[in-house]
Amino acid sequence: MAAMSNTLMENIVALCKRRGFVYPSFDIYGGLAGFFDYGPYGLALKNNIVSLWWKQFVTDREDVYGIDSATVTKKEVLQASGHVGGFVDPMVECKKCGERFRADEFGLEVVPASITDKSCIAARMPRELPCPKCGTKGEYTPPYMFQMMFKTNVGAKQDDTSVAYLRPETAQGIFVNFKNVIDSFHPKLPFGIAQIGKAFRNEIAPRDFLFRAREFEQMEVEYFVKPAAWQEAFELWRTKMHEWVAAVGIDTAKVHEREVPESERAHYSKRTIDFEFDFPFGQKELYGLAYRTDYDLRNHAAARGVDLSYTDDETKEKFIPHVIEPSLGVGRTILAVLLSAYTEDEMNGEPRIYLRLKPVLAPVKAAVFPLLKNKPELVKKARDVYDSLRSALHDSRYTFAWDDNGNIGKRYRRQDEIGTPFC
Amino acid sequence: MAAMSNTLMENIVALCKRRGFVYPSFDIYGGLAGFFDYGPYGLALKNNIVSLWWKQFVTDREDVYGIDSATVTKKEVLQASGHVGGFVDPMVECKKCGERFRADEFGLEVVPASITDKSCIAARMPRELPCPKCGTKGEYTPPYMFQMMFKTNVGAKQDDTSVAYLRPETAQGIFVNFKNVIDSFHPKLPFGIAQIGKAFRNEIAPRDFLFRAREFEQMEVEYFVKPAAWQEAFELWRTKMHEWVAAVGIDTAKVHEREVPESERAHYSKRTIDFEFDFPFGQKELYGLAYRTDYDLRNHAAARGVDLSYTDDETKEKFIPHVIEPSLGVGRTILAVLLSAYTEDEMNGEPRIYLRLKPVLAPVKAAVFPLLKNKPELVKKARDVYDSLRSALHDSRYTFAWDDNGNIGKRYRRQDEIGTPFC
Repeated sequence: MAAMSNTLMENIVALCKRRGFVYPSFDIYGGLAGFFDYGPYGLALKNNIVSLWWKQFVTDREDVYGIDSATVTKKEVLQASGHVGGFVDPMVECKKCGERFRADEFGLEVVPASITDKSCIAARMPRELPCPKCGTKGEYTPPYMFQMMFKTNVGAKQDDTSVAYLRPETAQGIFVNFKNVIDSFHPKLPFGIAQIGKAFRNEIAPRDFLFRAREFEQMEVEYFVKPAAWQEAFELWRTKMHEWVAAVGIDTAKVHEREVPESERAHYSKRTIDFEFDFPFGQKELYGLAYRTDYDLRNHAAARGVDLSYTDDETKEKFIPHVIEPSLGVGRTILAVLLSAYTEDEMNGEPRIYLRLKPVLAPVKAAVFPLLKNKPELVKKARDVYDSLRSALHDSRYTFAWDDNGNIGKRYRRQDEIGTPFC
Repeated sequence: MAAMSNTLMENIVALCKRRGFVYPSFDIYGGLAGFFDYGPYGLALKNNIVSLWWKQFVTDREDVYGIDSATVTKKEVLQASGHVGGFVDPMVECKKCGERFRADEFGLEVVPASITDKSCIAARMPRELPCPKCGTKGEYTPPYMFQMMFKTNVGAKQDDTSVAYLRPETAQGIFVNFKNVIDSFHPKLPFGIAQIGKAFRNEIAPRDFLFRAREFEQMEVEYFVKPAAWQEAFELWRTKMHEWVAAVGIDTAKVHEREVPESERAHYSKRTIDFEFDFPFGQKELYGLAYRTDYDLRNHAAARGVDLSYTDDETKEKFIPHVIEPSLGVGRTILAVLLSAYTEDEMNGEPRIYLRLKPVLAPVKAAVFPLLKNKPELVKKARDVYDSLRSALHDSRYTFAWDDNGNIGKRYRRQDEIGTPFC
């Protein structure tokens, strides 16, 4: 990894903390790996991104319905979806210091022996690899499969019958509401159900700031189509995703499609394209577009003996719809937006940092400064401008800043760093 | 409970499901008590409520900062806040059928013996009370204290060292970010930090639809003041909360203040006013306004040995700020709004249901119908109106509906039921 890349990530992390975008969670308690809090400007940026997505993917369309489902999820739902058995990562443990690692990222080739008993076979045991923590060589447990969902218990009985999981994706909340939306709205195919919300994965190795967090937000559409129409819908959403990347201000030259080979695809997918971004730590997945077939609806229908098929009004044909899923992470979007916007240059011989954010995303749309703090008539004029801006635009998305602190140059620099388009 | 009241709740629950406002979570899996999903109209209503609150409590003010913190919470944070030891309900269990009940709601008087060992003494044992489930009389375990937080484990080790909880309130995420906000924004007292987000409580007896759910959303402000200024701030937010009740369209005649006596107050509070609402199931807490003193900041500072005090710029006085907390539940707001808006009358001799929602909250702002479906020129004209409305108001909060399904009367009734102001 290049030193420059490390520096860029470090600069972004530092800017995020300094300017109130993103703080490590439970900071005063030493943090908790993989958890982050949004400060005032980060929340404003996140809200602006999420609103723009909702507009482009939901309200600008007439065929997409939005929902918001529970994050704590009944075990049976995630058994039917294949997550209880299959949402696992191979793990090894250093016998000396007890540290645990994701076996595949540690250089092991791993072949699951059986997903259900959580054992697996390492094709190559790490005899020669030193433990990244304590340095001991080759003292590892055999790799085993680690369940990545956070487990809890619901209700007064704390036993196996009350197990529930924090959802690992927003998608299942959509599939279990498919029938509800059909019954309330009688939509015609193709149609989509969208959701923005938290998802949780107990990553063995959370890292790279917002890139791999344990608690994060997703923006997903499950788009239901006739089985024969899946390719057309796949292309539709592929185009939409490229439009989104440009609209949100992610550097399009750094986004690359990757056709995911069968061996790497999730258990439910017959085709997946990853939208990868040139992060400073490598070209990695930003978004995914997957053809999930009828896998989820079929499994939920079978698990519960309910009818999740759709009947075509005209042809009277009855079938389980197939699904195209554009899946976008909010944290990864924010990281790619910040990486695309972050700029360093010089102004009047002094180094300057600024965020070239699209105005629609900027946490503060305009800042007003009185030129001189000790001239009451100047302060009053500036304050009038500020107040009239605030009252003219009674919309909680338009935020204006007032700053009379420090010299005028410093005030401009502060607004540069948070991407304010007008001062 | 009056039969009419039951009917009103039943009617609201049925309307919510029929029209896509609120569905029981995991419906096709038989549901999970205390969990609810928002359908398309419920989500739109919720978003409109949340935006209005954010405007009134955050962006219209210059002294309130918004944040968004993690829901999975490090154990040490909730130990310091007193939740790990004290956030408990007394529970009894029927020895015959195993059903568990909240002892206090079951008619028992309970005195905690020791909060830490979770035992407690029943002042009156329920010898004569039959089990509400199986009918057996007096076969109960001694009451014990039940921890109401959902517990999970974070990281690869699933043992006591990795325990975390789903947050029982959004407030603690604010307190642990107090120093971050001070460092990034240097606000002057008084100032507030606000958050809207999920909170989770493993209620022994979830009930009354959205009133007592296990997963729910809160809108909270922690308003930091000089110790001597708490009463003034308490009155400020008391007024704001009454303004909010009126603005959101909750029937103000049904809202009553209740001064909560010391014996009922939360462990951190020196004064609490509950805003109670005449729900069909009784006069119950809608919102709370609490004076939390410096309890939380003081305990976090002590637990971690960090300085969470504030230094007055002018007087150089150094102290831990005191806190006033207006705390509002989103689900209870929605329920009170729906109960206030729900109206039944007759139109042309036919019974009609409609929601008298404030236009700012209505999920659909205007619906456009072609009068006759088989007159292409009429359909085209209506469609032009619809399209021009959509394109004129490019704002994801303004949603328009198109409906050419069924007779015109039915289409009006459908919009009545979801509270659409214009057709």
